[in-house]
Amino acid sequence: MGIAQPNALQDLYSQMAVRMAAEPPMDLPGLRDMLEGLQVLAAEPTDVNYADVDAGGVHAILVTPADARTDRVIVYAHGGGGVTGSSASHRKLAGHLAKAAGTQALVPDYRLAPENPFPAAIQDLVAVHRWLRSEGYAPEATAVAGDSAGGNLSISTVLKLRELGEPLPAAIIGFSPWLDMEVAGETMTSNADSDAIISPEVSGMMAAMYLGETAPVEALCNPLYADLTGMSPLFASAGDAETLLDNAQRIVERARAAGVDATLEVQPGQQHVYLFMAGRSKEADETIANAAAWLKERLGR
Amino acid sequence: MGIAQPNALQDLYSQMAVRMAAEPPMDLPGLRDMLEGLQVLAAEPTDVNYADVDAGGVHAILVTPADARTDRVIVYAHGGGGVTGSSASHRKLAGHLAKAAGTQALVPDYRLAPENPFPAAIQDLVAVHRWLRSEGYAPEATAVAGDSAGGNLSISTVLKLRELGEPLPAAIIGFSPWLDMEVAGETMTSNADSDAIISPEVSGMMAAMYLGETAPVEALCNPLYADLTGMSPLFASAGDAETLLDNAQRIVERARAAGVDATLEVQPGQQHVYLFMAGRSKEADETIANAAAWLKERLGR
Repeated sequence: MGIAQPNALQDLYSQMAVRMAAEPPMDLPGLRDMLEGLQVLAAEPTDVNYADVDAGGVHAILVTPADARTDRVIVYAHGGGGVTGSSASHRKLAGHLAKAAGTQALVPDYRLAPENPFPAAIQDLVAVHRWLRSEGYAPEATAVAGDSAGGNLSISTVLKLRELGEPLPAAIIGFSPWLDMEVAGETMTSNADSDAIISPEVSGMMAAMYLGETAPVEALCNPLYADLTGMSPLFASAGDAETLLDNAQRIVERARAAGVDATLEVQPGQQHVYLFMAGRSKEADETIANAAAWLKERLGR
Repeated sequence: MGIAQPNALQDLYSQMAVRMAAEPPMDLPGLRDMLEGLQVLAAEPTDVNYADVDAGGVHAILVTPADARTDRVIVYAHGGGGVTGSSASHRKLAGHLAKAAGTQALVPDYRLAPENPFPAAIQDLVAVHRWLRSEGYAPEATAVAGDSAGGNLSISTVLKLRELGEPLPAAIIGFSPWLDMEVAGETMTSNADSDAIISPEVSGMMAAMYLGETAPVEALCNPLYADLTGMSPLFASAGDAETLLDNAQRIVERARAAGVDATLEVQPGQQHVYLFMAGRSKEADETIANAAAWLKERLGR
């Protein structure tokens, strides 16, 4: 089984990149279907219960590890450019994180662009947080986490909650966060050869769909432009082979400059969202363990 | 969420049929990705544990409901023409069946055609049965089940085990079994308008890939031509909107004629593998309940 090999993610990304570059271009349903296939990489986390829930009008999977505290929950926003991905593509990843953190995870199927561009996904995630409060989850026992676009959405949802004067979750985890909607940044160029999937073209295509009419410098879609003062503590990780590496680096720098408790983890040689290898690679498991330990110290009850 | 609607399967099949008919034709990776999407339909079965296992060299997911007997197991062969599908696309379906039957289920990722045409999948399933015996599962506490091509493989694996003189599982369940590799049969024509996905073209395309050089009348790839004498008891179901309806009808007739204990369930108005709606539709849940009750009476220990 190739999925247990160290290079499985890089190999799969390379195959996907070839398919995305083919003519005629892949249509959106094909792109969505293809990227769902990333789910194959993670090992099945054992002793985890899954249940469909209606989280304030948003379908989600509630992930409950056998020994988890059921008064603690991580809202896990899947990645995929805000255009692809689902609770199914990220079920196992969320399961590994929840197990390590000793919490539940909730994986919402927020609305996707371009049918529902920015800020539809953020609205859905705000609705999910309100639903959690109505279900009795304390905000200080709640965290947000996500990979790629889900890292962006985790931060922007917290910023939106702050703007609305609603209580903030205790912590934010962003795995390979995709923040720079201008597709700028040094590593977008310097890591172009080592990143197997995220080229300027791919990032730009996703950003155009996600943003719709919104400018790429608007703070709520591009947290690199946001005032981060008072934001919940942040853990960000990235692989050093990623074109998006400096998205994680820059948001941690900016958070620290704004007085936010912020931690950066960079894994050598790793690709975008190397966490897809959860249960299969040392690096994915290390980052999950580190993020979970960091989170446990910040969950307030 | 459309997935909870009664017509969700038919709607999804109709969208898939349009995509398959488009020009240029969908390539095989695209077809595989698309059909994986059927997994979205079933509800998450709660209180089920999943684990990756190496089942005699074949990757599989071992599905263990909380209250299940762990000395009983259903080998669940996923459908998809022998060309598509996986343990992921059928995880939830297998979970619902295992819960209803009070058993474990094992969902193997047998090798797919055209890279590995007939009889590679059957060889893999035979290896899985040998592995189960080596793990201490008694053949009389083992069943086989599958949908579409997986229904075919379930029957053909039992016929292969019989040919090899190895012990047979206690029972066979085929949901909408796809057996007729000649793409003949009355309902292939008479239900052409009501079946949303399986046309003669689709069935023929899949059969050509699955068979490779093998003739469509060879008994082990087309159980309608097999001598079924001494085969394990058979439960077959189909929807009466299916072009493959008479595949289920004919195998049950032939099994009875050969003295095999065989049961047919036909659900009115239902599409191919309406079991994808497990946990979402009355008809899917009824068939699962009936198949499970039937199975419990036949498992020998």
